[in-house]
Amino acid sequence: MELKHFYEAQQLNQEYIFSLFKLADEIRLAPERYQEALKGKVLATLFYEPSTRTRLSFETAMLKLGGSVISTENAKEFSSAIKGESIEDTARVVSGYADAIVIRHYEEGSVKKAAKVSTSSIINAGDGKGQHPTQALLDLYTIYRELGRVESIKIAMVGDLSSGRTVRSLCYLLGKFKNIEVIFVSPEHLKIGDDIKSYLKRHNINFREEDDLNKILPEIDIVYMTRVQKERMSIEDYEKARGKFIINENNLNMIRTDARIMHPLPHVEEIVLPIETEQKDKRAAYFRQSENGLWIRMALLLNLLKKVQDN
Amino acid sequence: MELKHFYEAQQLNQEYIFSLFKLADEIRLAPERYQEALKGKVLATLFYEPSTRTRLSFETAMLKLGGSVISTENAKEFSSAIKGESIEDTARVVSGYADAIVIRHYEEGSVKKAAKVSTSSIINAGDGKGQHPTQALLDLYTIYRELGRVESIKIAMVGDLSSGRTVRSLCYLLGKFKNIEVIFVSPEHLKIGDDIKSYLKRHNINFREEDDLNKILPEIDIVYMTRVQKERMSIEDYEKARGKFIINENNLNMIRTDARIMHPLPHVEEIVLPIETEQKDKRAAYFRQSENGLWIRMALLLNLLKKVQDN
Amino acid sequence: MELKHFYEAQQLNQEYIFSLFKLADEIRLAPERYQEALKGKVLATLFYEPSTRTRLSFETAMLKLGGSVISTENAKEFSSAIKGESIEDTARVVSGYADAIVIRHYEEGSVKKAAKVSTSSIINAGDGKGQHPTQALLDLYTIYRELGRVESIKIAMVGDLSSGRTVRSLCYLLGKFKNIEVIFVSPEHLKIGDDIKSYLKRHNINFREEDDLNKILPEIDIVYMTRVQKERMSIEDYEKARGKFIINENNLNMIRTDARIMHPLPHVEEIVLPIETEQKDKRAAYFRQSENGLWIRMALLLNLLKKVQDN
Repeated sequence: MELKHFYEAQQLNQEYIFSLFKLADEIRLAPERYQEALKGKVLATLFYEPSTRTRLSFETAMLKLGGSVISTENAKEFSSAIKGESIEDTARVVSGYADAIVIRHYEEGSVKKAAKVSTSSIINAGDGKGQHPTQALLDLYTIYRELGRVESIKIAMVGDLSSGRTVRSLCYLLGKFKNIEVIFVSPEHLKIGDDIKSYLKRHNINFREEDDLNKILPEIDIVYMTRVQKERMSIEDYEKARGKFIINENNLNMIRTDARIMHPLPHVEEIVLPIETEQKDKRAAYFRQSENGLWIRMALLLNLLKKVQDN
Repeated sequence: MELKHFYEAQQLNQEYIFSLFKLADEIRLAPERYQEALKGKVLATLFYEPSTRTRLSFETAMLKLGGSVISTENAKEFSSAIKGESIEDTARVVSGYADAIVIRHYEEGSVKKAAKVSTSSIINAGDGKGQHPTQALLDLYTIYRELGRVESIKIAMVGDLSSGRTVRSLCYLLGKFKNIEVIFVSPEHLKIGDDIKSYLKRHNINFREEDDLNKILPEIDIVYMTRVQKERMSIEDYEKARGKFIINENNLNMIRTDARIMHPLPHVEEIVLPIETEQKDKRAAYFRQSENGLWIRMALLLNLLKKVQDN
Repeated sequence: MELKHFYEAQQLNQEYIFSLFKLADEIRLAPERYQEALKGKVLATLFYEPSTRTRLSFETAMLKLGGSVISTENAKEFSSAIKGESIEDTARVVSGYADAIVIRHYEEGSVKKAAKVSTSSIINAGDGKGQHPTQALLDLYTIYRELGRVESIKIAMVGDLSSGRTVRSLCYLLGKFKNIEVIFVSPEHLKIGDDIKSYLKRHNINFREEDDLNKILPEIDIVYMTRVQKERMSIEDYEKARGKFIINENNLNMIRTDARIMHPLPHVEEIVLPIETEQKDKRAAYFRQSENGLWIRMALLLNLLKKVQDN
């Protein structure tokens, strides 16, 4: 399987995913061997929505491969979008400069549109309520590193499941594997979408919905916490949802010692643990998860840009 | 002719322009030979007005020459301008860090002011209603590449000619060449300025004004479309001007097959062609034009910074 | 003495300061020897408050050492801070990407908080009304280069001494040296804080307060001018303070020819000298001072990141 653009998790098959994980492992263990791998290549990051974290992760990945980076952290206001230019035209212009373009956009589907016309590789770094497929990749890579497997896992996804695109993308990826069980835990008004449910059904993934977090903590391998996204809902909806599902010192020990807490970050009040616990208790995996983003994005960039080179 | 700063198109003579084109050709055909040409040099981009496109083009040019880039995409709000610092002082401080400084500013003449006191090379990336001389260079380089010549051409400049600084700069460059004929096509209230008209007269460039685009399409070598700049006029003026002069599928074939449509981009409704046409019809030259910006800016940076080095 | 983080001037001792100056001298005289010193290392600049000047200075320093830079110029609005993430969490995430993190923050003490949990080196580039310790270092390095010594000097600090963190940090550094005399000159409502006064007392630094600038100009070695920070006070307070203490052509010659005018820049109306004077009169040291920031920051980065490497 060859990949030029990466705009949604469904594009990948098992073989491609495992080859990425293998490459990410190799880079992680001997990064100096890859220091010049993409020398002369240019990555553009076009962010129409704020995300310092994801942008810096991609940029670091490119720089550590010896490539260069051009960047805008406020494309919505500063680029030609404000003058009425379409995302397709912007992609065509920027593909005249850069070998790969990472786009975060406020509109679902816009990144795929860009990919259709771009001569350079396009990578989706989050499109509205759509997807965030490289986050799903780093999530799965974290599961793989923490549990030693990506099959036969029971995972709870907790929090704002209606607007959380990381959860959506992760479900799409999990659909590629066997013996997965998903438990959705969310406030009544922030439930997972029907499109995800029918996708999981089609792919024979067991799932159920629960509303008592503590009840299921003892049985899970992974509890994937997410933030209630204040900026994407009304104040009433936010107040109803916040603080409803929390990991703290009271329920931490309901989680098995070989299970893991994950979170795409930033976390606010849905995880309240002392910094010392976060640093020493292996179950708190979310900062390691964040760091995994670097290795998996290096592997992805290497794969996409080597392919382009071969064409 | 030696150049330290480049703030207006009039600075250049024919010889310098052709040497830039020659260098741009060489870089384009063997970019890997120039991968380390400016190693150790630093370019600063100071943008007081939004322009992701131009900024990324300059930054890519520098990076592809092996140089480094420091950048601000929002100098107006974030730099010391807001604390009352003059452009001269900012230029003097930044010339302590960078070997060349690309400035886009909202005030006509400000870039030239910076050049007067800066020890580093200053490049104008657009100053208010003043000029955008590297855009003119890439425009002329595009004409040179598309038509195989820069003399004996008939060019229509269409749209908002009163506030369009790319048109102004291009006229200044064309004034250096022989047997040029310019046809200005614009709404009544957005006509080309008298300063440009008298410059063209002084340089024996034939020009006339027309208000029927279709009438002149069959006779031109280049139709240079520009966007009506909504952000620089009243709503009434904008509504009077928009949609008045358009290239679309109805009049495309009035243009000779060896003629070309150019546009500094972003384009909005003044060019409405299917993407397939834009990709396949050679007359649609504006994305190639945009890419030419990279090669000509690489040539310019190389010229300016080699000069500085020799001093 | 080894240093991992640099968040306040008091951390340094004489020996460390002089070793930095020596290294800065070496880099300045043969920068090409250090062109690859930090190859493969990544510096992140997280700016929660505007400062193009300081940010670009740090970034240039890193790039000239062969390192790479990831950057945000508007962390307050664009990073996860807006989603409620703590500075500690941001630092932990970014330390997964970068070897050193330069932070400017609007809250006093926040950079030190970040340093407590970060695995990467943290550098304070200004924290609220707290400190700006690398500015103090470049100030002292400028005194060292201009006067040939850092002891036995009489220095006037002039302007807004209550909110000026550069003055605070410089006092902390001067406290490490012998035979220093400080004269504070400020409007009644913008006096130096008591914490600084008691620090100076504890370190046996002579100081006094004056309200006539011209009276003391003939006796000083250094007059350190600062801007009245309009953005940090009421309009009334600003109007009372502005224009009260000025260096201009009338009092310039009260300053001895071997004395120096310094300023952290940007300067507004507190120094009003013709550009020619600024360029030719050796007493105007403030643009040289700004350039010294590059060398001292290169020395600091080299020191911090080599240490990290050795661990």
